[in-house]
Amino acid sequence: MRQSKPPLHVALDRRSRVPMNRQIYASIRDAIRAGRLAARTRLPASRVLARDLSVSRTTVVLAYEQLEAEGYITGRRSAGSFVEDLPLESLAPRNRARSALDPSQEQVARRLVALARQAAGPPHVHAAPVPFRIGEPALDLFPARLWARLYSKQTRRSAGSPLGYGGVGGYLPLRAAIADYVRSTRAVNTSADQVIITRGAQQAIHLAVRVLLAPGDRVWVEDPGYLTARAIFQSAGAAVVPVPVDAEGLIVSDGMARAPRARLAYVAPSHQFPLGATMTLARRLALLEWASRSGAWVLEDDYDSEFRYAGPPLASLQGLDTAERVVYIGTFSKTMFPALRLGYAIVPSALADAFLAAQALVDHVAPTFEQMALREFIEDGHFSRHVRRMRAEYASRQEALLAGISRELEGLVHAAPAEAGMHVVGWLSSRGADAAAISNRARADGVEAAPLSAWTMAAPRPPALLLGFAAVRPRTMPAALAILRRAIAPRAR
Amino acid sequence: MRQSKPPLHVALDRRSRVPMNRQIYASIRDAIRAGRLAARTRLPASRVLARDLSVSRTTVVLAYEQLEAEGYITGRRSAGSFVEDLPLESLAPRNRARSALDPSQEQVARRLVALARQAAGPPHVHAAPVPFRIGEPALDLFPARLWARLYSKQTRRSAGSPLGYGGVGGYLPLRAAIADYVRSTRAVNTSADQVIITRGAQQAIHLAVRVLLAPGDRVWVEDPGYLTARAIFQSAGAAVVPVPVDAEGLIVSDGMARAPRARLAYVAPSHQFPLGATMTLARRLALLEWASRSGAWVLEDDYDSEFRYAGPPLASLQGLDTAERVVYIGTFSKTMFPALRLGYAIVPSALADAFLAAQALVDHVAPTFEQMALREFIEDGHFSRHVRRMRAEYASRQEALLAGISRELEGLVHAAPAEAGMHVVGWLSSRGADAAAISNRARADGVEAAPLSAWTMAAPRPPALLLGFAAVRPRTMPAALAILRRAIAPRAR
Repeated sequence: MRQSKPPLHVALDRRSRVPMNRQIYASIRDAIRAGRLAARTRLPASRVLARDLSVSRTTVVLAYEQLEAEGYITGRRSAGSFVEDLPLESLAPRNRARSALDPSQEQVARRLVALARQAAGPPHVHAAPVPFRIGEPALDLFPARLWARLYSKQTRRSAGSPLGYGGVGGYLPLRAAIADYVRSTRAVNTSADQVIITRGAQQAIHLAVRVLLAPGDRVWVEDPGYLTARAIFQSAGAAVVPVPVDAEGLIVSDGMARAPRARLAYVAPSHQFPLGATMTLARRLALLEWASRSGAWVLEDDYDSEFRYAGPPLASLQGLDTAERVVYIGTFSKTMFPALRLGYAIVPSALADAFLAAQALVDHVAPTFEQMALREFIEDGHFSRHVRRMRAEYASRQEALLAGISRELEGLVHAAPAEAGMHVVGWLSSRGADAAAISNRARADGVEAAPLSAWTMAAPRPPALLLGFAAVRPRTMPAALAILRRAIAPRAR
Repeated sequence: MRQSKPPLHVALDRRSRVPMNRQIYASIRDAIRAGRLAARTRLPASRVLARDLSVSRTTVVLAYEQLEAEGYITGRRSAGSFVEDLPLESLAPRNRARSALDPSQEQVARRLVALARQAAGPPHVHAAPVPFRIGEPALDLFPARLWARLYSKQTRRSAGSPLGYGGVGGYLPLRAAIADYVRSTRAVNTSADQVIITRGAQQAIHLAVRVLLAPGDRVWVEDPGYLTARAIFQSAGAAVVPVPVDAEGLIVSDGMARAPRARLAYVAPSHQFPLGATMTLARRLALLEWASRSGAWVLEDDYDSEFRYAGPPLASLQGLDTAERVVYIGTFSKTMFPALRLGYAIVPSALADAFLAAQALVDHVAPTFEQMALREFIEDGHFSRHVRRMRAEYASRQEALLAGISRELEGLVHAAPAEAGMHVVGWLSSRGADAAAISNRARADGVEAAPLSAWTMAAPRPPALLLGFAAVRPRTMPAALAILRRAIAPRAR
């Protein structure tokens, strides 16, 4: 291993609007791509570089994490961080004529880029973990070694056949294990044949769109609500109808007034995203009654209901539905880890063939070994154990965040406990506060506090920030809250 | 472990058109689903059951392999095959009202089912390995333990961060390794930024369709050609224009006569599927010249060019292209194993943002650990070694098949050596032979010999069967050829 000598040169522009951690990241990345930092070079310890640059150690750690997440460097726990061995020639952008898109293609390309940007939420979502980012589980607590063992076991277990093309719909024992699980925990009424294993919830939404929607169809979405789903509906040519939510969830009567003949309603009844309401039974029944009467479909996204801390765990909409109008969607991104890319759709039996056909067209099914390992993870009880452990951990992390908000952000932010999920809504006490500007300032210092406004459509809301707590380690909380405080009240230092 | 007592009851109907192996499969599957065969029951050895039922051992092995591929039973090498522990309640189909599709949805659903059927090729593609099935690598020769070790290593290597949502486009070091690989082996001109990691070639085609095609656009496809691509184009509302191929590949002048203003040409120039031509340089240049002049795009599917046994390995179309009109597609399904579900698109730099956006909408990127393990597999030289080893093995398996054809099918079938890939075309000597009927008879006896006619569109071809050789172990070859002989000449016994 070579030590970098002379010491790593990082040029910082302190008047720039680019956050310090991004400047450090870009400086090191460019040095690696240009070959100035050779493969296997050890980077200075974060503490040392922070001192040399007169920045906080967190700033350097964020830069290193980003470099590692993108594959430029490798962290070897105690040994430090090393430059990856990358084929440099492959990293240099080529200098060739750009092929021109013709006008119609340019329009398509522009629309796709715009949709994807919308789907990704606020700009500049980092790949490395960042305090308060929403939707991220506590990855450091995942039993990765156990997972690796189960995966290895599958590869050794039988010769050859699971290496082949798997069946569409997924690995049957996993489909059965999921049917079992959602039946007992979510009162979902299903057999294994109705379970379609997908690449995460996103593919499940995508398949539902292909099967259920034609261009021009109207779709109810919650306002505020999940952007990626909205972008998928729009990219299929559907007309999105924002329907406001209140403390009881989606206001069904509003939807019926706005678009009585919509084809599909997309809802998160267990835990509305991002405001957190649990849809009441009255609303659930009204929604199902509307769907059944008007021949519409309901897409129930049950993305994080495993993490419920208070309030009655209502059964799924799917379980209440007697007319088979509900497609239920679940994901293992929150309960296991996002990089697993496994989720599922539970579809009415009349739709099963169409969903399988849509999946066969989009791609083959998810990797088989992962499905086999996950099945064993579930059947052997590791899954319930991990979810139970995370639920307790997240509950205490939420408490720590709420206590920290009362203490550090007193008079600036107020937040009620979330009954479920992985984030709280931090309402800004000053009604005139500019949440987007606050969010930008916080991000410049390495904290991600997304403004609620990024998810609102037609119905305006008071200014608020979404604060994820599941991935925030207790010891990083005080520093992150201090950054947030400065972002909210910069003059009050 | 319980031994099944009384001995497994399998009812066979010898006059049925359903193949014996499917009857055995269905009989055991139903017994498991109904709970008549309890979890962990050991099934009789294939030799014993074959004797009891007076069928060939291959017939029983095929049934067992199908049951195992679908997850009903587990084979533990020497210990035998055992019934899986499945939640029976989840396997019982539910008895609820079928939800009705309204007419427009029914139309969509029917169209999807039809397209998917088309995409899957001839009916009843089994999940378990079957002699002569095309497109399947020798999975029993894949270094699965080494793969498991690399995967485990990735999960242990760094704490947490690769478990999170990966970046769209894929894991950068893998993108760089692929750029390196295709540059050196296929003369593809690319940087890592242009490499988009996908879920196999199918997703790459799907993304290209989203970026490049609008409904009504015309697309040249090779006739005969790859059905799944055709189905993806049609499902996007494109008009497919079949363009015949000859010994020099796609006849470009024919395409220009039929649809001069097509938006896209889909070709497999390294190894035309299924006839096997290598596109000549003159045709390549004509195709690129047409694309550049008319503003069309070329989708180059390079699905199995790693396995070349003879003839000059021509550089990729992409490498010849100076106008950046080519999207190049590769897959690891043949070189590694299909269940890995990893492939890639190499896109002109002007299109990279649009491809990334399309991928962000379809789903996140492929699982990160697999990408990390594959990168190491490539960089450490295992990939080239495995491909080299398989190339030698497939060459000798092809020789064995050709020798077997001359010996066992003399006067019935003639086949020329394939210069590349994993199958040969077996032309039936009798021009009036019904290849589809022969294929059905062979399948009934457990051998898959797909008729060329399944892939032809407008241009009729003499009767032929496609015979995959890569996955056929030498010792099963004689029995499989005997079955084929009986299927071709049933009276000649």
